[in-house]
Amino acid sequence: MNLTKKSLYPVTLDGFDEKLKREEIKAYFHNTFDIFEKIFEVLKNDDVFYQQSEITRHPMIFYFGHTATFFINKLILMKIIEKRINPNFESIFAIGVDEMTWDDTDSENYSWPKVQEVREYRDKVRALVDNLIDTVPLTLPIKEDSPMWIILMGIEHERIHIETSLVLHRQMPLEFIKDDTYFTVETSSNKMIKNEMITIPQTKIILGVDKQKHNMYAWDNEYGNYEDEVGEFKTSKYLVSNREFVEFVEAGGYEEKSYWSEEGQKFLEITNAKHPPFWVKENNLFKYRTLTKVIDMPWNFPVDVNALEAEAFCNYKSKKENVSYTLPSEVEHKAICKYANLKEILDLSEAEANQNLNTFSSCDIDTHSFNGIYDVVGNVWQWSRTPIFGFDGFEPHVAYDDFSTPTFDDKHALINGSSWASSGNLIMNDSRYAFRRHFFQHAGFRYVISTNKDKKDMDIYESDALVSQYCEFQYGDNHFGVENFALACAKIASKYSINTTKALDLGCATGRATFELAKTFDSVEGIDFSVRFVQVGTNLQEKGVVTFQSPDEAELFTNKKVTIEELGYENLKDKVSFWQGDACNLKPNFHSYDMILATNLIDRLYQPRLFLDTVDQRLNDDGILILTSPYTWQESSTKKEFWLGGYKDENGNDVKTIDTLKTILSEKFELVHTQDLEFVIKETKRKYQHTVSEVSVWKKK
Amino acid sequence: MNLTKKSLYPVTLDGFDEKLKREEIKAYFHNTFDIFEKIFEVLKNDDVFYQQSEITRHPMIFYFGHTATFFINKLILMKIIEKRINPNFESIFAIGVDEMTWDDTDSENYSWPKVQEVREYRDKVRALVDNLIDTVPLTLPIKEDSPMWIILMGIEHERIHIETSLVLHRQMPLEFIKDDTYFTVETSSNKMIKNEMITIPQTKIILGVDKQKHNMYAWDNEYGNYEDEVGEFKTSKYLVSNREFVEFVEAGGYEEKSYWSEEGQKFLEITNAKHPPFWVKENNLFKYRTLTKVIDMPWNFPVDVNALEAEAFCNYKSKKENVSYTLPSEVEHKAICKYANLKEILDLSEAEANQNLNTFSSCDIDTHSFNGIYDVVGNVWQWSRTPIFGFDGFEPHVAYDDFSTPTFDDKHALINGSSWASSGNLIMNDSRYAFRRHFFQHAGFRYVISTNKDKKDMDIYESDALVSQYCEFQYGDNHFGVENFALACAKIASKYSINTTKALDLGCATGRATFELAKTFDSVEGIDFSVRFVQVGTNLQEKGVVTFQSPDEAELFTNKKVTIEELGYENLKDKVSFWQGDACNLKPNFHSYDMILATNLIDRLYQPRLFLDTVDQRLNDDGILILTSPYTWQESSTKKEFWLGGYKDENGNDVKTIDTLKTILSEKFELVHTQDLEFVIKETKRKYQHTVSEVSVWKKK
Repeated sequence: MNLTKKSLYPVTLDGFDEKLKREEIKAYFHNTFDIFEKIFEVLKNDDVFYQQSEITRHPMIFYFGHTATFFINKLILMKIIEKRINPNFESIFAIGVDEMTWDDTDSENYSWPKVQEVREYRDKVRALVDNLIDTVPLTLPIKEDSPMWIILMGIEHERIHIETSLVLHRQMPLEFIKDDTYFTVETSSNKMIKNEMITIPQTKIILGVDKQKHNMYAWDNEYGNYEDEVGEFKTSKYLVSNREFVEFVEAGGYEEKSYWSEEGQKFLEITNAKHPPFWVKENNLFKYRTLTKVIDMPWNFPVDVNALEAEAFCNYKSKKENVSYTLPSEVEHKAICKYANLKEILDLSEAEANQNLNTFSSCDIDTHSFNGIYDVVGNVWQWSRTPIFGFDGFEPHVAYDDFSTPTFDDKHALINGSSWASSGNLIMNDSRYAFRRHFFQHAGFRYVISTNKDKKDMDIYESDALVSQYCEFQYGDNHFGVENFALACAKIASKYSINTTKALDLGCATGRATFELAKTFDSVEGIDFSVRFVQVGTNLQEKGVVTFQSPDEAELFTNKKVTIEELGYENLKDKVSFWQGDACNLKPNFHSYDMILATNLIDRLYQPRLFLDTVDQRLNDDGILILTSPYTWQESSTKKEFWLGGYKDENGNDVKTIDTLKTILSEKFELVHTQDLEFVIKETKRKYQHTVSEVSVWKKK
Repeated sequence: MNLTKKSLYPVTLDGFDEKLKREEIKAYFHNTFDIFEKIFEVLKNDDVFYQQSEITRHPMIFYFGHTATFFINKLILMKIIEKRINPNFESIFAIGVDEMTWDDTDSENYSWPKVQEVREYRDKVRALVDNLIDTVPLTLPIKEDSPMWIILMGIEHERIHIETSLVLHRQMPLEFIKDDTYFTVETSSNKMIKNEMITIPQTKIILGVDKQKHNMYAWDNEYGNYEDEVGEFKTSKYLVSNREFVEFVEAGGYEEKSYWSEEGQKFLEITNAKHPPFWVKENNLFKYRTLTKVIDMPWNFPVDVNALEAEAFCNYKSKKENVSYTLPSEVEHKAICKYANLKEILDLSEAEANQNLNTFSSCDIDTHSFNGIYDVVGNVWQWSRTPIFGFDGFEPHVAYDDFSTPTFDDKHALINGSSWASSGNLIMNDSRYAFRRHFFQHAGFRYVISTNKDKKDMDIYESDALVSQYCEFQYGDNHFGVENFALACAKIASKYSINTTKALDLGCATGRATFELAKTFDSVEGIDFSVRFVQVGTNLQEKGVVTFQSPDEAELFTNKKVTIEELGYENLKDKVSFWQGDACNLKPNFHSYDMILATNLIDRLYQPRLFLDTVDQRLNDDGILILTSPYTWQESSTKKEFWLGGYKDENGNDVKTIDTLKTILSEKFELVHTQDLEFVIKETKRKYQHTVSEVSVWKKK
C-alpha cells in the first residue's frame, strides 16, 4: 500500500471514455479500500480488534469485515454476482451499525473470526470488485440502475466508515493504540481569537440534486426538490473553539439542568459527562485526545461535542447575554455557503479547507476563511437544528432502501459542512448526513441568531407508499369479504404447530402476523429484509401505534391510526422482537424454532433454494414450516435460473413451483396440508390486487 | 432548399458533446424534411395532390401532410408538447398508410385542405421541431425514453415515406409528372450478363440489436435475440435483371396459373397483370418507366416486381431446370452478407452501393460487387420468403406500438438489402422492413437453391402479453363471481339508451362490448388508440375467432380459442366495424351516435378534457354518454396538470374526479345514473386486478 497516497476525490459519472472511467473508478476504489485498512493500523495488535470502543457498538473486527461484505451483499442482491465468497462473514458482518432495535449488536451472539481470516477475505473482495470494475457493462453517464452504481455505492459506503471508524478509534483507550507518522496532527497557536456575529442577508435556498443532471454519485436523500426562503440572520464568524467552550464548562454548564433538553438530561444521566469527550482531565488540567495521542489543549481547535452539548452551550450563552442563540438550520447553513461563495468542492484546493484527510486532526478555527466566515466546510462537522427528512420526490435506491428512511424519525439531526476525516461524497456540496443527537463525530458547532421558522414539520404518517400499502394490508380494512391475511396465516400456524415455544415470522413486513402468532407462541421473532417495514412493527411495540396513509383516489389519502389497545396486543409486546435479516443468508443465531412462517416470501428471494435447502436446521424436532405464495416469479426479484417454477424445462414440459418445492423439501419434510388462501391489497379506493396464495404446511421429519 | 444536398446518414446516439449532437440532429432533420418536400416537386401542379396513384391509397395530399402530423401526434402522445398546431390536420392526416381494415382510406370521408395550407403547416412543424431539437433535455447516449428519441422516430418515419412516396410517384401517370434534373437516371449497357450460382457455406447467424449497446436509432422489430444455423446453400450472383425476367414473361409466365400461389392468382385476377408494373408496352416493345419518364428498356437493370411475381419466376425456373429455386430467407440473406464481408453501412462509400438517393433509378446489376456477389445491398430491395416476426425480447415502443405488431401476421414478407431510394435507418445493416407480398416497392429479387428449413412457425396465439390479458378479460372466464365487464356495460347501455340506431364503443380494446352492443344497436363502431387491440375485434369479425394465451404461473400459459359461434355473434358481424383513433382528437367523420360508451378510458387519455369538451357534438338528440372509470390517474398516461381529480387544489382541498366530471359535463348533459361496477383482470392463475369502477350515465340536454 502506498502510504503517501492522498485521498482521491470521487469520480464523475459522465465522461468520454469508458476504459478511462473504469481506471478512474478502480483507482478510487483502491484508494478507499487502502485508507480504510490503513486506519486499522492504529490498533496496537490483533487482540484489540475484539474490543469495543463503546458498549453500544460492535467490536472493531465487525467494522473491519463490514465494509467488504457490504460490496458482496449488495452485488448479490442486485444479481450482479451469484456466488458468495463467505456466507458466514456476509451474514455476521452484515448489519449493526446504527443503534436500532433490529440491529443485533450483542456480541455474545457471534463467534468472531480471526483478523487474518478477515484480511484474506478483504483481499478476495478486492480482487472480485477489481474484476467487476473491468468487466461490468458500462455506458456513460453511469446511472442509478447501472451495475457500476453498486460498486460506487460500496466505495462511498466505505468512505463513511473511514469517517466513523476514525471516531471509534479515537475513542479507544490509548493502551490499545499505536502511533504512526501517517496520522499527522496540527498544532494550535496561543492567539486569542474573539468570535463575532456576521449578518447573512435574506435569500432563497433551493436544495436537492436532479437525477438527470447530477454528475456525481449521490445518496437517495440528496435527490429531489426543496425550496425555502431564509430571512436575514446572524452567524458566528468562527466555529466554537475549545477556549470558547471552556467558559461554559467552568461556569458549571454540565451541572445546570435548565440548559439541557430532556434528551440532553438523559445523556448526562447515562454518561455522567462533565466536559467534551475528547478532553482529558490530568492533574486538574484539560488535555486533548487526538486520534493516537494526548496533547496539550489546543485552545483554538474547534470543540468536539454532540448536538446535545452544543444546544446546552447555546442556551447558556443565550441566558448570559439575553439574546437567543441556536444552532443553524440546514437552509441557514446553505445561506452561509452562498454568502461565502463556496466553490464546487472538486475545484477546492487542499489549502482552502481542512477535509479529505489532508491531515488527521482539527486545526485552528482561524485558518480557513470563506469570504470572512471560517470553516464553512471542513475542520469539524457543524451540528444543525434540523432533523433529516426526504425532499419532495424522495425515493430509496432499490439496492439500499434503508440508507435514509430509518433516520427520517425526528431523532437524527443533520450535520452541516464536513470534517478533516470526511472524504468522498461526504464532502460534496449537496451531500446530507445525519446522526442521533447524542452521537459523537468529529463534530462541533457554530451558533446563529435567527428568527427563521423551520418549515418542515415531521410527518408522523408513514408516507412511504409501499410501506403504507402493507400497513393497510396488515392493519387496515377487509375488502371483498376476504379475511385479513396475517390473521388467517396465524390461525393456520396455530392449528398445525405441535410445540409452541418459539416461532419465526420470516418476511414479516409490517409485523401483524408476528404479533398475532404471539397469542400462540411464547416468543416470536419477526425478520424482514427491509428496515422500512421492520420499523412499523417496532413502532407498534415501542410506541403502541401504527400510523399510515390509506390511498383513496390517485394522490389523495386518508390518514389512519391503529393502536396496540385496539389490536389487543398490549400483553404481547414483550413476546415479540423484530430484526433485519436476509432469508437467503440468515445469521446463525436465528434457530430452534417450533414453527417458521414464510408468507409471500419465496418468489421474492434472489436465490430461494439458499433458504429452502437449510431451513430444516433452524427448526426443532416436530418443527413446522409454513409457506404461502402466489408463485409470481419475476426477473426483478429472482434471476430466471433460480425460479422454482413458472417456466418450461429443456424438454418443453411445464415446471410448476409446488412440484419443485416437493422435490426440494421432501427429504427432510412431510407435506401435511395444502390449501388456497386469498388476500387483497388495496392500491386505491377502487383498485385492488386480489391474489390466491397457495399455503403448504411441512412437518420436519 | 439546397438541391445539391446529398442525403445524410443517420446520427449516432452517443457522442461527447450535446450541443454538437443537437446540431447533427437538426441537420439530419432538415435534410429529411427537405428531401421529402423535394420529391413532391415531381407532381406537375397542386391539382395532382388530390389524385391517387392506386385506388387503395389516399391521394398525394395525405402523404404530404402525414409525415409532418406524425411528429405532432407522437410529441403530444409522449407529452413533450401540449398544444396541437392544427387538430383537424392532425386527425385527417393521422392514419391510413397500410391496407388495414381499420385504416379509413375512403376519401369521401375527408375534405382535404389546400396544398398551400399544408405547405404552411409543414413550415410550422419544422419550426416547432427545430425548437425542440434545441431545447429538449438531452443526455448522451440518447435512449428510447428520451424526448429526442421521438424526434428521431419522426425523422426515420419520414425517411420511410421518402422511399414509399417515390414508388407512388413513379406509379402516377406521366401526364401528372414533371421532370427535374435533380432526379437523375442511370443508363444501362448492352452487355450480356449471365447469372450464375455461388455457394454460401454453412454458418451461424445471430440477429437482433442490443438495446444497451446499439448506437443508432432502431425500430422495435430490430431489437432482441434470434439465432439460426444456416446450412450450405447457393445464391444467384446477380439480382434478376429485366433481361433474365423477360424470358418468363415471353414464356407466358403470367398466364400459367401453376407458377402462382393462391395469393398470386388472386393478384392476377384483380390486376390482370401481364408483365412487371414499371414495364410499359409501346408498339409491342417493352419500355421502362423511371420516376419521371419512360425510357428504352434498360435490360441490365434489376426487374421491379412484387413477391408474388418473384415467387412465380422461381417456380417457372425450377420447373424448367428441374432444380428447386426459391427466394432466400432472412437468415440466408444475412449469410450472404457475411460471405460478402459487408461493412457497416456508415463506412460504405457512395461508389460501393446504389442506395441513399445517390441517384433516382436502378443501375446495372453488375455495377456493385461485394466479394463477387452483386447488390448484396442497394439497387432494389430483394424479396425474402420470410414473414416478418418479432425476435425474442420484442417489445413495441410505447410511442408507436403499432409500427410492427400489425405486420406480424404471416402476410408481410421481409425485404432484404435496400434500394436506390432507401436512406436513414432503411439502409442500416440491422434494419428490418416488410411489406404485403402484392405491394410494389423498388424491389426485385435474387434466387437461391436451398434445403434450409425455416425455423419460425408463426404463432397463431396472441403472444402480446397486454393484448392477451385483455382477451382474457373480455373473452375469458369470470373470477370471484364478478360478471364479465363488457357484457355488464352493454346491459347498462341498453337499459339507458333512448334511440338505438348507432353506437360508439370508444376505447373498445379487443372489441367484446362492440359486438355485444350490436345486439341492441343497428350499427356499432369500435375505436381504440392501439391497433394491437383493434386487430382482435377485426379478427373475430373476419376470421370468426379470438385466440390468446391465458397466463398460469409466471411464464406458463394455456392457449385459448373462442369462436364467433360460441359467442353467438355470427349475425352481428356486419353490424360492427373497428377503427384506429385517438379519443382526444377524433376524426370528424365519427358522429351521429345515439350512445357513446367509454369504458376505463378517461384516466388513460393524455388530455381528457379534449374528449369531454366536445363529445356532445358527436351525439344525436337524446344521446347517451356512459363513462366507467376507477379514476386511477397516473403521470405515465396523463400529465398531472390534466388530471380531472385525485389531487389537492391550491387551497389544500381534495379534488375528486366525479365532481370535475359534473362541472365539465353539466352544461350539456344531465347526470341520470351512477353506480359501482366491479371488474377483474387476470394477471396469472393466482393474481388478479380487482377493480371497482364508477359508472356514470349522462343524457344530452
